[in-house]
Amino acid sequence: MSNDEYSLIYWPAIPGRGEFVRLLFEETGTPYSDVAKSSPQDAVSQILELNAAVDPISSGSNPSVNAPPILRHGSFVISQTPAILLYLAPRLGLSPPPTELAYHHLNAIALTLLDGFVAEVHDTHHPTDVSLTYEEQKPEALKRAKAYREKRIPKFLGYAQRVLDSKASGDGPWLYGDSLTYVDLVLFQCIHGTEFAFPKTIEELRKSGKYDAVFKLVDAVEERPNIEAYLASDRRAQYSNGIWRHYPELDEA
Amino acid sequence: MSNDEYSLIYWPAIPGRGEFVRLLFEETGTPYSDVAKSSPQDAVSQILELNAAVDPISSGSNPSVNAPPILRHGSFVISQTPAILLYLAPRLGLSPPPTELAYHHLNAIALTLLDGFVAEVHDTHHPTDVSLTYEEQKPEALKRAKAYREKRIPKFLGYAQRVLDSKASGDGPWLYGDSLTYVDLVLFQCIHGTEFAFPKTIEELRKSGKYDAVFKLVDAVEERPNIEAYLASDRRAQYSNGIWRHYPELDEA
Repeated sequence: MSNDEYSLIYWPAIPGRGEFVRLLFEETGTPYSDVAKSSPQDAVSQILELNAAVDPISSGSNPSVNAPPILRHGSFVISQTPAILLYLAPRLGLSPPPTELAYHHLNAIALTLLDGFVAEVHDTHHPTDVSLTYEEQKPEALKRAKAYREKRIPKFLGYAQRVLDSKASGDGPWLYGDSLTYVDLVLFQCIHGTEFAFPKTIEELRKSGKYDAVFKLVDAVEERPNIEAYLASDRRAQYSNGIWRHYPELDEA
Repeated sequence: MSNDEYSLIYWPAIPGRGEFVRLLFEETGTPYSDVAKSSPQDAVSQILELNAAVDPISSGSNPSVNAPPILRHGSFVISQTPAILLYLAPRLGLSPPPTELAYHHLNAIALTLLDGFVAEVHDTHHPTDVSLTYEEQKPEALKRAKAYREKRIPKFLGYAQRVLDSKASGDGPWLYGDSLTYVDLVLFQCIHGTEFAFPKTIEELRKSGKYDAVFKLVDAVEERPNIEAYLASDRRAQYSNGIWRHYPELDEA
């Protein structure tokens, strides 16, 4: 299985949750196929078929999935962003193995960041019904976004800053230990996306000086040669109508 | 470390996310301490202190935490429900070890169920601001609950039913393989709590016959001798103002 190609199945035309998976491949120079890029016209039908399938592929050892991102590795199929990251990271040298306690600590950090900067960001533009448009729930979105800007972003930035201040963070700019792990890539994407959605809010919080270690880490990831090259390439999708959307009225004080 | 006592730190007086951890201990007869039960008057201050701490305990190897449940095992501290379950389940015989692909499949199933029946249930009574009361966001809650009842509960019940129908589910009533794993306990608590919050909705869905394998699993877990004894004991908290709340108006068609 270790020689099998990795294959990412995700919605075309947005970075979205797929981005967390792509960043692991890109940072480590790992070859992967990406249906959203290689055949965007097939990606949606492939996802809808997988989401409805009792048995995702014929081997019979994979349980059904609910939503993308979905990773295939040989005959192995897995969904759920944090589960995909846990599977991949030790294989790509971005996490210690599961036999070490650090593996579990990294998982807890990733889960907390994804709660705060992915799930909750999506709720700012879809607070009452994910199957309706933003415009159909705008009054509620204004309320949810206000609470998110004023209370939730500072809460989760404060959490990330505390992790970076803790002894477990070690030397260097990274969240855990002395070298880069996948949770640094997770934090990078979380802040990068949230800054696209709420530029004024993030600018103000950056200037506050309370979260300097967080923004220093984001900058350090952005300067990694493979990440820098990736962000400049056409493999990196532009933000549009995905999780991180920019509605100026949701970013107003 | 394997001889160290497990210690759960969670809010007193509600089942909440702590329940997913308790069910693993109870099913396997594993001794554990539980500050919500042993000294409920200290639990809140202990949690607030841990949430604000840069270094949760003095050993320096644990990163900061954001919220309970928090598990201590010797000098090891970990937060985030799915991360706690992943740490505990193989140690308690409720999951294969991390070297097996099944370990990752179980994680994906647990994450999906917790998304659908914990995070989204909480949003039904707190759709715009988790720091305000339900009464302060009731109009928005009515909208969110309607979408949850009509679209989201069927979606996630459908997912669980598909997993049970898949070849990976094996023989017997369990989600994955031929014997009980921790994800069966997760599904049990998810449905048990959601049924408390939305009794009419769940009753109707149960009667539809579309999700028979899901409800059969819930019944099978409830009949496990250790679980049955636990549910009848005073160690099991009553539902109140936690994640799963019963507001009759949110359960009306």
